[in-house]
Amino acid sequence: MRKRVRLCITGSEVMNGFVLDRNTQFFASELYALGLELVESRIIHDDAEQILSTWKEFVETGDIVVNSGGLGPTPDDLTVDLLCSWLGDSPVYEPYAEKRTRYFFEKRAKLFPGALSIETALRQTRVPSHATILKNKVGLAPGIFIPEKNFFALPGFPEEIRGMWHEVLEYVEALSPQRFATRIIPIWGVGESHLFSELPALEKISTGVHALPWGCRLFLRALSEEQSACDELETAVDAIQARFVGQIMENPLLEIIEFCKKQNLKLALAESCTGGLAAKQITDIPGVSAIFQGGVVSYANSVKTDALGVPEAVLEKFGAVSAEVARAMAEGVTKKLQADVGLSFTGIAGPDGGSSQKPVGTVFVGIHKAKTKQTMVGQFLFPLGRERFRNATVAAGFLALWQFLTEPNGGRVYPLNTFVE
Amino acid sequence: MRKRVRLCITGSEVMNGFVLDRNTQFFASELYALGLELVESRIIHDDAEQILSTWKEFVETGDIVVNSGGLGPTPDDLTVDLLCSWLGDSPVYEPYAEKRTRYFFEKRAKLFPGALSIETALRQTRVPSHATILKNKVGLAPGIFIPEKNFFALPGFPEEIRGMWHEVLEYVEALSPQRFATRIIPIWGVGESHLFSELPALEKISTGVHALPWGCRLFLRALSEEQSACDELETAVDAIQARFVGQIMENPLLEIIEFCKKQNLKLALAESCTGGLAAKQITDIPGVSAIFQGGVVSYANSVKTDALGVPEAVLEKFGAVSAEVARAMAEGVTKKLQADVGLSFTGIAGPDGGSSQKPVGTVFVGIHKAKTKQTMVGQFLFPLGRERFRNATVAAGFLALWQFLTEPNGGRVYPLNTFVE
Repeated sequence: MRKRVRLCITGSEVMNGFVLDRNTQFFASELYALGLELVESRIIHDDAEQILSTWKEFVETGDIVVNSGGLGPTPDDLTVDLLCSWLGDSPVYEPYAEKRTRYFFEKRAKLFPGALSIETALRQTRVPSHATILKNKVGLAPGIFIPEKNFFALPGFPEEIRGMWHEVLEYVEALSPQRFATRIIPIWGVGESHLFSELPALEKISTGVHALPWGCRLFLRALSEEQSACDELETAVDAIQARFVGQIMENPLLEIIEFCKKQNLKLALAESCTGGLAAKQITDIPGVSAIFQGGVVSYANSVKTDALGVPEAVLEKFGAVSAEVARAMAEGVTKKLQADVGLSFTGIAGPDGGSSQKPVGTVFVGIHKAKTKQTMVGQFLFPLGRERFRNATVAAGFLALWQFLTEPNGGRVYPLNTFVE
Repeated sequence: MRKRVRLCITGSEVMNGFVLDRNTQFFASELYALGLELVESRIIHDDAEQILSTWKEFVETGDIVVNSGGLGPTPDDLTVDLLCSWLGDSPVYEPYAEKRTRYFFEKRAKLFPGALSIETALRQTRVPSHATILKNKVGLAPGIFIPEKNFFALPGFPEEIRGMWHEVLEYVEALSPQRFATRIIPIWGVGESHLFSELPALEKISTGVHALPWGCRLFLRALSEEQSACDELETAVDAIQARFVGQIMENPLLEIIEFCKKQNLKLALAESCTGGLAAKQITDIPGVSAIFQGGVVSYANSVKTDALGVPEAVLEKFGAVSAEVARAMAEGVTKKLQADVGLSFTGIAGPDGGSSQKPVGTVFVGIHKAKTKQTMVGQFLFPLGRERFRNATVAAGFLALWQFLTEPNGGRVYPLNTFVE
């Protein structure tokens, strides 16, 4: 039987609920994308007996075993000692980790004298003397591979695991595990049921859909290692790509930023219901100051009139949540913040504030381009609760903006109404 | 031996990495807070053989078993059928769930005709005929309790689990599980190593610290069910509370909002490096429009001068990241947005933009109160990477604002410099 993978996550901080385990998803999604099968993820305490019995049970199946956690310097980090007692080996300092630890310790000791002894710090550089080493260039504790057991011991910190993951996969590859052709496709601006209705009939492929605020991630995996299954997979991918032109991308925000850099366009945001979430998402990306002027969060109507120049008459006649106000906000923020393109959001996040004509979840997105004096407004309804409403609204706004920038006369995804000054 | 708890999380969407498992942390933190011990959390596929063997293994230990997932209407939802075959029982429609499902189905069928058959929809209302029922008022699938096995089957959606959790705990209580006195204390504005250095010597208590952007959550648990351990716990809690006066609260933002409502104060935000994150966090809270005027995200210097009225001379002389600009931003946004209190952030999130005098992670927080014409500025250094920098900065800003509002002449937590116009 071809090998699969079993995960053991050790950490009392996870078992006591202090910390959310993100490692299971990291390993699961990485393994899935590579076509490898994960059998189970077992989360347990930093308890010697429990850890060792789990390892033994896992190794007996013949599968590949990945343990995550327990490699730090403190007494509750048990992995290396347990490995040594299990393998009849003894621990040694791994030279690369030892050198780095001594260097950081000396640097740090000047800052925090007496915080940690060098002996304690060096505990995390120990490995079983016969183990294969996976260098840790992020943290200090080396990863460990025990070939005769198909066993990996990795750190508990995701960024450290990522740093040695490439090397882990080379060893896994050499163990010739069971492996199915797999494709993952991010599709923006489509709901789960709509996506399912567009899927072609599939016999040799399993599908999964993960609904997200911005659309769906579609997972396709061949059910066998046969060529016919791989062929059906490629046919399905082609059909999906043809159906969702302009909607398949990792993140429209990255596309927008690249586009604005090339075209030398400056962007400004006017937010009401989204309350700064759009600005927050843009500024999550380093170096965005090259294209982002800034934004105005206009919660109070007085801010809409004073800071954005929305005419009081428009606010009174149409209400703050209206196509006309979305338009005036987009135009106003472009002008006031000296930008080339303005994006605005005004809607009802709830739980209060809805009416029969404009229920909670109603939102208007406005986009203005100074050069062409063109403004477009889209209306959406996301009655999903406050948090999901705001995430879906911002995602729709960025996708609409991307569509507007690349197809200014109306795009495929969203119907937008055009105004020209 | 007193009973502990074992979790079985079923769901191929988790095992394939599509979805992050949040249920382990929900159960783990709830059980920890109640003093109950969680032994392991096992995440497995929607696979009949794997599920049934895990249940049997868990039940044989004598512990309380909680299964989460597999109660929906689709063919990969196996829990009820597996329970029936295991118990020699047969499934019946649970009347409350059946009534609700028929009602929602009729309502929904008008909107999406033909999307789902009523037979399929009713699958999720099935329960083993002899089971004890846990009403699901959020979703449609009932929870299930099998007293003779100490076994619970709960839905996979956290909001549905929360809806029946209270009832689950009543049954758990009746099984008289092992239970240790436990206290969890959120402490703002303190680092992990500082907190550890302030902890009194403890013999009969275990401690855990979860470092967070805003400070730490301290976990204290008695190591036995004896009274002396409970007494030591209470002594430790008293010592911590006395040491961190003004820093122990769930979230200063909620305190700030309450305070501003009572005092009829309107708040405005001027953000540079935080890029809208502070506004986003404030507007996460429903009903905040009563006290929140809005904010300006001034990424470009032109926005700082035009929209916030920061004098160009001040920007030139001191630089955008300076106490003087933080002061001018707080004063400017208060005036421009017609607020009573202004909070400003200007700093270097990185990765670029640092200097030897102002390294990446440097940030100035400004607070202005219109009535007293008082402005305070605090300087912080959070060299933690872009995301953690922004979270730590916003948290420090809100804590500093809370301190300023309640102790306007200087508080215990942060040293702030005072300016008066």
